[in-house]
Amino acid sequence: MEKGVPKKWGFQGNKELNVSAISVRGVFNKLLGILNKDDKRPVIRLCRADPTDFSCFKTTPLASDAVAAAVQSFQFNCYPPTVGVLEARRAIAKHLSSDLPYQLTPDDVFLTGGCTQAIEIIISALARPGANILLPRPGYPQYEARAACSGLEVRHFDLIPEKGWEVDLESVSALSDDNTVAMVIINPCTPCGNVFKYPHLEKVAETARKLGICVISDEVYGHLTFGGNPFVPMGVFGSIVPVFTLGSLGKRWNVPGWRLGWIVTCDTNAIFQKTGIVDNIKKCLDITTDPPTFLQGAVPQILEKTKEDYFSKNINIMREAANIFYDRSQDIPCFTCPHKPEGTMTVMVKLNLSLLEGIIDDVDFCVNLAKEESVILLPGVTVGLKNWLRITIAVEPSALEDGLRRIKSFNLRHAKMP
Amino acid sequence: MEKGVPKKWGFQGNKELNVSAISVRGVFNKLLGILNKDDKRPVIRLCRADPTDFSCFKTTPLASDAVAAAVQSFQFNCYPPTVGVLEARRAIAKHLSSDLPYQLTPDDVFLTGGCTQAIEIIISALARPGANILLPRPGYPQYEARAACSGLEVRHFDLIPEKGWEVDLESVSALSDDNTVAMVIINPCTPCGNVFKYPHLEKVAETARKLGICVISDEVYGHLTFGGNPFVPMGVFGSIVPVFTLGSLGKRWNVPGWRLGWIVTCDTNAIFQKTGIVDNIKKCLDITTDPPTFLQGAVPQILEKTKEDYFSKNINIMREAANIFYDRSQDIPCFTCPHKPEGTMTVMVKLNLSLLEGIIDDVDFCVNLAKEESVILLPGVTVGLKNWLRITIAVEPSALEDGLRRIKSFNLRHAKMP
Ligand SMILES: Cc1ncc(COP(=O)(O)O)c(C=O)c1O
Ligand SMILES: Cc1ncc(COP(=O)(O)O)c(C=O)c1O
Repeated sequence: MEKGVPKKWGFQGNKELNVSAISVRGVFNKLLGILNKDDKRPVIRLCRADPTDFSCFKTTPLASDAVAAAVQSFQFNCYPPTVGVLEARRAIAKHLSSDLPYQLTPDDVFLTGGCTQAIEIIISALARPGANILLPRPGYPQYEARAACSGLEVRHFDLIPEKGWEVDLESVSALSDDNTVAMVIINPCTPCGNVFKYPHLEKVAETARKLGICVISDEVYGHLTFGGNPFVPMGVFGSIVPVFTLGSLGKRWNVPGWRLGWIVTCDTNAIFQKTGIVDNIKKCLDITTDPPTFLQGAVPQILEKTKEDYFSKNINIMREAANIFYDRSQDIPCFTCPHKPEGTMTVMVKLNLSLLEGIIDDVDFCVNLAKEESVILLPGVTVGLKNWLRITIAVEPSALEDGLRRIKSFNLRHAKMP
Repeated sequence: MEKGVPKKWGFQGNKELNVSAISVRGVFNKLLGILNKDDKRPVIRLCRADPTDFSCFKTTPLASDAVAAAVQSFQFNCYPPTVGVLEARRAIAKHLSSDLPYQLTPDDVFLTGGCTQAIEIIISALARPGANILLPRPGYPQYEARAACSGLEVRHFDLIPEKGWEVDLESVSALSDDNTVAMVIINPCTPCGNVFKYPHLEKVAETARKLGICVISDEVYGHLTFGGNPFVPMGVFGSIVPVFTLGSLGKRWNVPGWRLGWIVTCDTNAIFQKTGIVDNIKKCLDITTDPPTFLQGAVPQILEKTKEDYFSKNINIMREAANIFYDRSQDIPCFTCPHKPEGTMTVMVKLNLSLLEGIIDDVDFCVNLAKEESVILLPGVTVGLKNWLRITIAVEPSALEDGLRRIKSFNLRHAKMP
């Protein structure tokens, strides 16, 4: 040992970090690492909801020009206010109000670094010793990870594949107790790809009210629907139960890398205000980073100027992708897709392992598929459902077809002999 | 009570949030709220290190043009990698290496949402049950706040005003035990306004090594020096002790609102790697938000293109501000400034309360000053020193003179009769 080096560094024992080992990003990074470098075919990533590799998912220049103009104006170089730039909050309030039976105000809106930071803030603001939160299974692992960081106990309720992935409301009631602070729903629903209907959301609201818990409605995929069910924001029921609506520019504008999101209180009875939760949110925002001020400054232009035909073009591409996926996946014997995707960028399929030789579970499936076919899928266990797969369909149609073809030949190669 | 409303909402008891009530932003928001609306004079904010209100502190158009070009290229709309865009990491490694006796690599660099998020990540990565961290007093309250969030015990060592704010190394040794993970130094030193000398930093490194703790060197004000002592990055001693260097674009480029920062490992013996701390950092970054990808994409251009004369112009303004401040503050009887500012944007002055009538402490001083003179200072208690004041001098020279004049008349008006 080198002279004078301490026997042991004080930070040496910190290997067990108090964060969930499971994150979409973490699993994605691992699968990237095991790809076969000799496979000359392009890697097909059906694993992350990031379609920006494909030119058909390019954002509108109106949005990027608004950001460029904001940064070049020199008006937005200062630290932003804790809760965000007023004009951006006003624009988001107006934007979301158009789907609601009442008007939101700028005071209802808090800007965050993507929906990712919205989740972090809301979980920190609600956490207290002994409290618990109800999360959907399957879901989005960021919730579990942030709850672990905040010491908030997690209880899972199921989404029922046979019922078009509706919330199992009985299990919500059964899981809840006096220490339950909130339930989370994701609508349009990722990873399942369904869109909740109005009457079901109303039941969610009534159940939450009965239980005395609030609803966190993750609407990061708001308006990204391409099936029969229209998008209904949970805020519609903000007079029944206090609702936090989370969202971001990332998905609808195809700019996940911009990292601009929001928390919105949809709460006509001002319960969040009265119970001090709004203050908690501000305290949490005081000590975390913010979206760049110039990006906040561009929000009014982005929301007001983006044309309807930009959105409808995206929706049409996604509808085509859903059709291709649903059609081709029928030819993959080990896949069962209980519900045709009608919203978001992802879908869940059940893996029938009894049809496969030597594949022990969903992780094993994804690892071998990545190695042999350079296709990356997300194992279902990452989102709470073992031996299912989460598949992203937001890729160029030809890449989706190619990916599904490779999965099919992987399946055939590994098929169990009868 | 309305029919069917729960007696009590499950999230009602969450008022005691596990975050420090003290943040610069929180105190600033409170002081803003008590200003006298009838005072027609401009409000003078000598409280936040954000000079962007003043045209003399405008950033270079080369930087904003680089951001505009990146966002308009459509190449940076995707999610960024967990650790940041490679080209940005490479550029920062190169940029910082020019002051070091060895070369940093991109693998040493992790991008964050400003230095604020760098602090959050590093504290989370080092925290474990029972561990403690040594923080300077006075310091930057974000460290205390994030340590509270992560359950990391805080122990304070003093900076000694009579010794030009040098670290009290004896108290560092006395405070440290087997559960101490790190000590923090801020250099150039805010809030004190001094710049640590090479031999003193070397002693800090040797002390930390002896104690088996790492050094977190907050260099958010790196190179912002205008006195006799040149800036010496702590990384120079990265072979003696493993060092985390934290920094951001915010201060040197006058763009605090851009929120682009970094954590850099200066650790020629790869101790952070071997002890698993680098993995912890990656895990923490996996579940937090990121600086926008396009902003990361602009970093190489920003670092390479900014001209030396842009920096020297800034330094000259700050030197003038330091001179004005040091000169005029001699005329304010209740102020004692132990050390002429020679770096950063802030300085500490001691308040002699025995010379004032009816002012009970530093908070009372700041509250009454805000009300009567529309001048906002930060009470010293916010940064750990009761009955001191933290004053930001990074304002237009005329505003600084005006502010100090108002403070002087406030002092005279409240002077205790002999
Ligand atoms: C349900 C859900 N919530 C939140 C996020 C994160 O959103 P953002 O990219 O805006 O941080 C995602 C990202 O895919 C998501 O699927
Ligand atoms: C010592 C210190 N560290 C960190 C920060 C935060 O830096 P940033 O604005 O890059 O988040 C500041 C801001 O003033 C600071 O003074």
